[in-house]
Amino acid sequence: MALTIGEIATQIGAQAVGDISLQPVRPRQPDEAGADDLALAMESAFAAQLADSSVRMAVLSDGADWQALGLKAAILVARPRYAMAGISRLFDTRTAGAGIHPSASIDPTAELGPDVSVGPMAVIGARAKIGAGSNIQAQVFVGDDAVIGADALLMPGCRIGTGVRIGDRFIGQMNAVIGGDGFSFVTARPSAVEDYMAAGTISASMKPDRHERINSLGSVLLGDDVEVGASSVIDKGTVSDTRIGNGVKVDAQVMIGHNVQIDDTTLLCAQVGIAGSSQIGKRVVLGGQVGVADHVTIGDDAIALGMSGVTSRVPDRTVVIGYPAVKQETFIKMYKAMRRLPMMAEKLNMLHKRVTNPDDKS
Amino acid sequence: MALTIGEIATQIGAQAVGDISLQPVRPRQPDEAGADDLALAMESAFAAQLADSSVRMAVLSDGADWQALGLKAAILVARPRYAMAGISRLFDTRTAGAGIHPSASIDPTAELGPDVSVGPMAVIGARAKIGAGSNIQAQVFVGDDAVIGADALLMPGCRIGTGVRIGDRFIGQMNAVIGGDGFSFVTARPSAVEDYMAAGTISASMKPDRHERINSLGSVLLGDDVEVGASSVIDKGTVSDTRIGNGVKVDAQVMIGHNVQIDDTTLLCAQVGIAGSSQIGKRVVLGGQVGVADHVTIGDDAIALGMSGVTSRVPDRTVVIGYPAVKQETFIKMYKAMRRLPMMAEKLNMLHKRVTNPDDKS
Amino acid sequence: MALTIGEIATQIGAQAVGDISLQPVRPRQPDEAGADDLALAMESAFAAQLADSSVRMAVLSDGADWQALGLKAAILVARPRYAMAGISRLFDTRTAGAGIHPSASIDPTAELGPDVSVGPMAVIGARAKIGAGSNIQAQVFVGDDAVIGADALLMPGCRIGTGVRIGDRFIGQMNAVIGGDGFSFVTARPSAVEDYMAAGTISASMKPDRHERINSLGSVLLGDDVEVGASSVIDKGTVSDTRIGNGVKVDAQVMIGHNVQIDDTTLLCAQVGIAGSSQIGKRVVLGGQVGVADHVTIGDDAIALGMSGVTSRVPDRTVVIGYPAVKQETFIKMYKAMRRLPMMAEKLNMLHKRVTNPDDKS
Repeated sequence: MALTIGEIATQIGAQAVGDISLQPVRPRQPDEAGADDLALAMESAFAAQLADSSVRMAVLSDGADWQALGLKAAILVARPRYAMAGISRLFDTRTAGAGIHPSASIDPTAELGPDVSVGPMAVIGARAKIGAGSNIQAQVFVGDDAVIGADALLMPGCRIGTGVRIGDRFIGQMNAVIGGDGFSFVTARPSAVEDYMAAGTISASMKPDRHERINSLGSVLLGDDVEVGASSVIDKGTVSDTRIGNGVKVDAQVMIGHNVQIDDTTLLCAQVGIAGSSQIGKRVVLGGQVGVADHVTIGDDAIALGMSGVTSRVPDRTVVIGYPAVKQETFIKMYKAMRRLPMMAEKLNMLHKRVTNPDDKS
Repeated sequence: MALTIGEIATQIGAQAVGDISLQPVRPRQPDEAGADDLALAMESAFAAQLADSSVRMAVLSDGADWQALGLKAAILVARPRYAMAGISRLFDTRTAGAGIHPSASIDPTAELGPDVSVGPMAVIGARAKIGAGSNIQAQVFVGDDAVIGADALLMPGCRIGTGVRIGDRFIGQMNAVIGGDGFSFVTARPSAVEDYMAAGTISASMKPDRHERINSLGSVLLGDDVEVGASSVIDKGTVSDTRIGNGVKVDAQVMIGHNVQIDDTTLLCAQVGIAGSSQIGKRVVLGGQVGVADHVTIGDDAIALGMSGVTSRVPDRTVVIGYPAVKQETFIKMYKAMRRLPMMAEKLNMLHKRVTNPDDKS
Repeated sequence: MALTIGEIATQIGAQAVGDISLQPVRPRQPDEAGADDLALAMESAFAAQLADSSVRMAVLSDGADWQALGLKAAILVARPRYAMAGISRLFDTRTAGAGIHPSASIDPTAELGPDVSVGPMAVIGARAKIGAGSNIQAQVFVGDDAVIGADALLMPGCRIGTGVRIGDRFIGQMNAVIGGDGFSFVTARPSAVEDYMAAGTISASMKPDRHERINSLGSVLLGDDVEVGASSVIDKGTVSDTRIGNGVKVDAQVMIGHNVQIDDTTLLCAQVGIAGSSQIGKRVVLGGQVGVADHVTIGDDAIALGMSGVTSRVPDRTVVIGYPAVKQETFIKMYKAMRRLPMMAEKLNMLHKRVTNPDDKS
C-alpha cells in the first residue's frame, strides 16, 4: 500500500490539505495511531486527542482546524461514514485468489469464467457456472447446476446449494448456507396446529404421529450486489424460488425461510428470522433478532427495531417495535403507561376505597 | 421424469381425470406454469388463473370443474398440502449419491453399509458405522464411533460428533452440527448467578475469576426419521445422552442444549433455543425463535407461538405465548388491556380529580 | 482409563472412603449405573436410588451415609458441580490429535509448534502460527496471518479468519466462525434510518438505493482460556480489533458484532446477539437469546436474564430482564400489575359509572 494522502483524498472524493505526498501505512483509531498511520478522527472528540500525539496524518470532518492539531497533512470529508467506506476499500487486506488449488474438487462439467480462483478443499458440482474474477475460497461448496455471477467472493465453508442462481459481486461469508431445504411438513389428518387454527383450541383426539416432508422443488434466486453473513441460511422455495433483490445485505446468523421475497436494497441485521412466504419491501431495515411471521408483508422504507416480532402487515415508511410489533408511537404510549402501572394500581385502590366507603377517611 | 398424470395420481392416492397419459415436465405455480407443466392450483384463487392460460394439466381440489378451466387433464386431491408432499417426492431433484469419492478420508476401521455414497472432502472417523443406502455428501464430517442408520442424507458440511447415534432415514442439512459439547461451567466459589439465585441479589464480594469446564461425557441419540436443518446445533449430554425421539423435525438455526429430551413427532421451527435438561413432549410445536429455559417440561400436543419465552411447565394441549409465556387467552386479555392502558390512565386521572376535588368542574 | 476411586478423589481434591482400590469404568447417572460404573449421586434424591441397585461405587455429597446405600466405595465432595468438572476431565473421551494428516493443506510459510496435530481436509494459511500441542481437527480453516496459542482445540469445521489472534487453551467448537466481516454499510445520502434517528420519522423523499460496504480492517483478539460454541460468529472490528478477554465462554449460535469489547470471565449463553461496539464487563452473564443493542455498556457481575433486550447502560451487579431490559424488581412490579390489568379495567369502569352516574345503582 503506497498511496499518498493526495491520492487517497482523490479516490474517496475528499479534499487533501498539507503535505499531500505523505504515505500513511494504514488507518487507525486516534488513540492507537502513530506517526506513520492515518488517524480516523472525524468525530471532534477524537480529533482533540491528536493535539498531544505523534500523529502526523488524519481524516477530519470538513472545517476542522488541522493545523491547530499539529498535523502535517489531513483529508477533510463531508460524510464521515461514507468516507470510511472508501478508505476501507483502499486499505482492504482481503486475501486475493491464487488460481485453482490442486486439492479442489471441480466437476469436469462445471464452467469457470476467466480469473476464477478456487481454494483448497473447495467442491464445485456438475454443470455449475462461476463468473469471471470470482474468488472461491477454501472448503467452499457449490452444488450441481448452481450459477454464480462475476466477481463473487465466497469465504471458507460457504455452501451454495444445487440450482441456486446468484447475480454479480456476491459476497458469501464463512459458513453461510444458500439453498437449504424449506421446513415444510404435513400430516395425513389434521394436526394440533390445524385444530388450533380452525377452532382456537386443541382437541383431545389422538393426533397424527407422522410428518410427511414437502421437498423443496424451487431454489434460491439472488440479485446483484447481495451479501450474506456468516452462518446465515436462506432456504429454497417449495415450488417457485425464494427471491432476494439487488443490493440486499444480510448480516450473520439470519434465517430466511422458503418462498420469502425480499426487494432491493433491504438490510437484515444479525439473527433476524423470516418465516415462509413473507414479502419484504425495498430499503427495509430489520434490526437484530427481529422475527417476521409467515405470509406477512412489510412495506418499502419500513423499519422494525431490534427484537420486534412482526405478525401483521407493516405499511411503507413505518417504524414498528415490540411483540406483537406495533407502531413505535403506540409502543411508547403503552410502555410509559406500563411503567406507571404500579402507581396507577395504588391510585385506583385508593379511589375505590373513597368511592365505595366515602365515610372511611383512613 | 416421465410419469403420466395417471401414474402421479395413483402414487399420491388421488383421482386422475381427462387425458391421463399426458406427462408433465415439472410442477409449477399457476402464474409460472406453461403447457408442459403441472400447475399446482389447489386453491380456488389460483385455479381461476388457469382459464386464460396455456396450462393443460393441473392439480385441483376435489370438486373443482377442471373442464371449465380449459384443462386437458387434472389430478383431484382432498388434502392439498398432503398431496404436495407426494408430488414433491415424485419430482424431487435431490442429488443422488455416486459412490465413494476418491478425495474422501474414510478411516479403515469405519464400516459402511451397502450402497453408501461418500462425497468429496468428506471425513469419516474410526469405528464409525453408516447404514445401507446412506448419502454422505461433500465435506461432511462423521466422528469416531458415530453410528448412523440406513438411508441417511447428510448434506454438505453437516457435522456428526464422536459417539453420536442416529436412527434410520436421518436428514442432516448443510452445516448442521449434531454433538457439540454442552455449555457447562462451574466456579470454585459461588458465582454472581449463584448469589442471585440464593438471595435474589448480587453481593459486592469479589467473584471467582475462572470457570472450570464440565466436559460432555454423554452423547446425542436421535431416533428414526429425524431431520435437522441448516446450521442447527444439538449438544451432547453431560453424563447421559441428549435424546431426540422418532419423527422429530428441526428447522434451521435451532439450538438444543445438553441433556434435553424431546419426544416423538415434535416440530421445532427456526431459531428455537432449548436450554439444558428441558423435556419436550410428543407432537409439540415450538414456533420460530421460541426460547425454552432450562429444566422446563412441555406437555404433549402443546404449542408455543413464535418468540415465546417458556420459563415454566406447559400442560398438554396448551397454547402459550409471550414472555414469560402464558396461556394464549391470558395473553390476549392482558394485551387488550395494555392497548387500552393509555386511555385507562386518562380516565383514572379524571376520576381522581372528580373524587378528590368534587367541586372542581373544570 | 484405569483410575482407582482413591486416585480420582485425590485428583479432584475430594475424600475417598471404602475400598478405594476399585476402578470404575465410567461415570453414569444413578438410574443408568451398574456394578462397574461410578454413579454420580450428589443429589440426595438420586442417592436414594442406589440402595436397591447393583451400584458399588458413587460420588456423594459430604456427609452422605455411603454404607447405608450398600456401596463398596464412595467419593465425598463438598461442591458437586465443581467435582463434576474434575471428574469429567478425568473421563473425557475427546479424540486426541494424531499428527499431520496427509490430506491437510498447510501453507509452507505457516509455523506449527511442537506436537501440533492437523486433521484431514484442514486448511492452514500463509504465515499462520499455531502454538505447541494444539489439536486442529478435520476440515478446520485457519486463515493467513492468524495466530493461535498453545494447546488449542479446534473442532471440525471451525473457521479462524485472516489475522485473528487467539491466546492459549482456546476451544473452538464445530463450525464456529471467528473473524467474519462486520456488518457495516453506508449510503451516499441519508437513509431511512438516519431520517428516523434525526427526526423520529421517515420522510417520503426517495431514499438511496445503494449501500457502500465498510470493510473490516481490524481483526479479532481473543485472550487465554476462551471457548466459542458451535456455529457462533465473532466479527472483525472496523478499524481496531473486536476484543474478548481471558476466560470468556461463549455458547453455541452466539453472534458478537464488530468492535465489541468483552472483559474477562464473562459467560454468553446460546443465541445471544451483541451489536456493534458494545462493551461488556467482567464476569457478566447474558442468558439465552439475550440481545444487546449497539454502543451499550454492561457493568461487571451484571446478569441479563434469558431473552432480555438490553438497550441502555446496565450498572455493575444488576440483574435485568425484559424488553427493553429493566431491573428485575421493576419488571416484576410491572408484570404483576399487568397480570391484574384486566381486573383493574373492570374496577375502573365500575368506579367511573359510580362517580359519573352516582344515582345509577345498577
